[in-house]
Amino acid sequence: VLAAALVEAVARSRFVILTGGLGPTEDDVTVAAAAQALGTPLYEDQGLLARIKRCLKERGIPWQARFARMALIPKGATLLDPGGMICGFTLNQGGARLFFLPGVPRQMRLLFDTYVFPALVEWSGPGQYLAERTLRVFGLPEAVLESLVHRFHPTPPGMTVGYYPNFPETHLTMTLHGQDREALEAAMADYIATLSHRLGEALISVSDAALEELVGQTLRERRLTLAVAESCTGGLIGHRLTEVPGSSDYFLGGVVGYSNQAKIDLLGVSAQTLEQHGAVSPETAAAMATGARLAFGADVALATTGIAGPTGGTPQKPVGTVYIGLATPGGQEVWHHCFPGSRGEVKTLTAQMALFRLHRALSHDPRLSGH
Amino acid sequence: VLAAALVEAVARSRFVILTGGLGPTEDDVTVAAAAQALGTPLYEDQGLLARIKRCLKERGIPWQARFARMALIPKGATLLDPGGMICGFTLNQGGARLFFLPGVPRQMRLLFDTYVFPALVEWSGPGQYLAERTLRVFGLPEAVLESLVHRFHPTPPGMTVGYYPNFPETHLTMTLHGQDREALEAAMADYIATLSHRLGEALISVSDAALEELVGQTLRERRLTLAVAESCTGGLIGHRLTEVPGSSDYFLGGVVGYSNQAKIDLLGVSAQTLEQHGAVSPETAAAMATGARLAFGADVALATTGIAGPTGGTPQKPVGTVYIGLATPGGQEVWHHCFPGSRGEVKTLTAQMALFRLHRALSHDPRLSGH
Repeated sequence: VLAAALVEAVARSRFVILTGGLGPTEDDVTVAAAAQALGTPLYEDQGLLARIKRCLKERGIPWQARFARMALIPKGATLLDPGGMICGFTLNQGGARLFFLPGVPRQMRLLFDTYVFPALVEWSGPGQYLAERTLRVFGLPEAVLESLVHRFHPTPPGMTVGYYPNFPETHLTMTLHGQDREALEAAMADYIATLSHRLGEALISVSDAALEELVGQTLRERRLTLAVAESCTGGLIGHRLTEVPGSSDYFLGGVVGYSNQAKIDLLGVSAQTLEQHGAVSPETAAAMATGARLAFGADVALATTGIAGPTGGTPQKPVGTVYIGLATPGGQEVWHHCFPGSRGEVKTLTAQMALFRLHRALSHDPRLSGH
Repeated sequence: VLAAALVEAVARSRFVILTGGLGPTEDDVTVAAAAQALGTPLYEDQGLLARIKRCLKERGIPWQARFARMALIPKGATLLDPGGMICGFTLNQGGARLFFLPGVPRQMRLLFDTYVFPALVEWSGPGQYLAERTLRVFGLPEAVLESLVHRFHPTPPGMTVGYYPNFPETHLTMTLHGQDREALEAAMADYIATLSHRLGEALISVSDAALEELVGQTLRERRLTLAVAESCTGGLIGHRLTEVPGSSDYFLGGVVGYSNQAKIDLLGVSAQTLEQHGAVSPETAAAMATGARLAFGADVALATTGIAGPTGGTPQKPVGTVYIGLATPGGQEVWHHCFPGSRGEVKTLTAQMALFRLHRALSHDPRLSGH
């Protein structure tokens, strides 16, 4: 099947990109299929073989004959070699250029960016330039986003706009291509400035940066510290914040106060508040945020409490009910939301909304202007 | 392009599955392409249109003409209707059956499982049965896994085995098909039993369950409670544990002790331990686990401390150095690891290894046999 598909692709295309099937196991058959389809014998690349042996040794994996398969490549092919154990290769066949890439996403992306994309750019000819930008939007469904975008006439000539639900965000991509790089970038920047004005705070980022990166940049610039008190998000906000390199500069830590006792013992929420208002209440969210701010000695603290489901809902507080608390030097604020979706989706939306609220507060609250 | 691909696919295939492009924005062109390719006019499904209007109203999104596009389907098509705002549709054309599915993964999967898979099963004829199982393995690269699997001769006749790196795990899928359902399932069960024996503890799960689910089941059955103290994982372990519905039955909460002061104040790690041994040390990992166990009054506590990178490494403790602590009624244990990869990968591997250590301890430690 693979060989037949490859023959067909080569007959009709200038570029053919294959991913996966380059590993050492018996279900990795891409190289054999290529040899069959292209009528090219395979040979063992001795340099690559030696490297594979060395890498395995470093990782403490005993050598086995099957690993030698990873050094087999078609005659005439050129290795695409990022320096590790996994290589791709490229070869020309009947007017087509073929790229064989590994299937593991991280490895595939590295080789794509290093070898395939430049080859496509070169093929597109000198002077051809592509300007591409992604805007991250939160809280506007794609159709609403499009209707806002379309109030601007005209989009720059030749611009392609795409709308992508990228849960929990909506992403807007814009591409322009032509020969005058400066003119393209200027048109793009102009258009983004107009859009920014119209989309307002729903526009999180014009640089493809995630909320946790934006919030982190601001906290670092202003020398502010942050703590979190998470109930329904279970640690997800801390996880997102700490994905950013250097986050220990401003993120002091958090309490996952999943049980009521933990909310009392570690966050100083009073038993009376929990009893009178419940663990999922604006009062508890505010007390958790304040408690985290004090416990960590942080400038700012975020708190979440809610019912992620699938059980635990009541008529008054259905599944998806969430309170987000923010404690700052100026006091506390609490927001109420009711999010749709599965347990995982409610957690994701809550973490996103909490970071979004913090991002907005950092933009507007003069008491968060920093030290 | 879409229309041409569709014509080609219909000419050569019994089933054609399309995903994406059914939404309300102007880049959603799949239905128009289908109409062009198949020469079929489109009509507006009034029932679906009314439902879309109702759904939008419930979500507080104002009606716009563009939403009407989502109710356009080719004449002769049958709606694939999961009851929400997003439907797919199916139609027959020149001997092929076409399925049009939404592109958002969650919606696509629902329609695939509900409509497409049963149609494929029906087409395969009466009495045809497919037995498929996925085993989750941790700590064995795919080639090592394959070599272990291949020591068993023979695999059941007709079994297909696939190996998939699914970071941080390796997944092994086995499929068997034939007419005798009971015989297939018996052969599968026999083979899995043999494999289980050989793979030992690297085999996490024979039921496609995640580590956090397995650990949670055991904790619930034994009425044990769990707390976590996370430094380098930043909340990821708590996040994984709380993805499981009902996890509040056994998970009391955690402390993300990102700063040294938080480790002292909230986890009772002594300043002396931090100064003498450093925040990334077996002593600190043990103290964090013990501190979390006490702070939450939990039966068991897991702790992580390490250098996720990309900076912060030293010759003695390079990036990727991680200590995992476990505190139980019987005392403490600490494991040292040095994980390769990016910041995110080190976090992922650390959280996985911590849950794996807990899973093993629950299997072996008689003091964790429960209340």
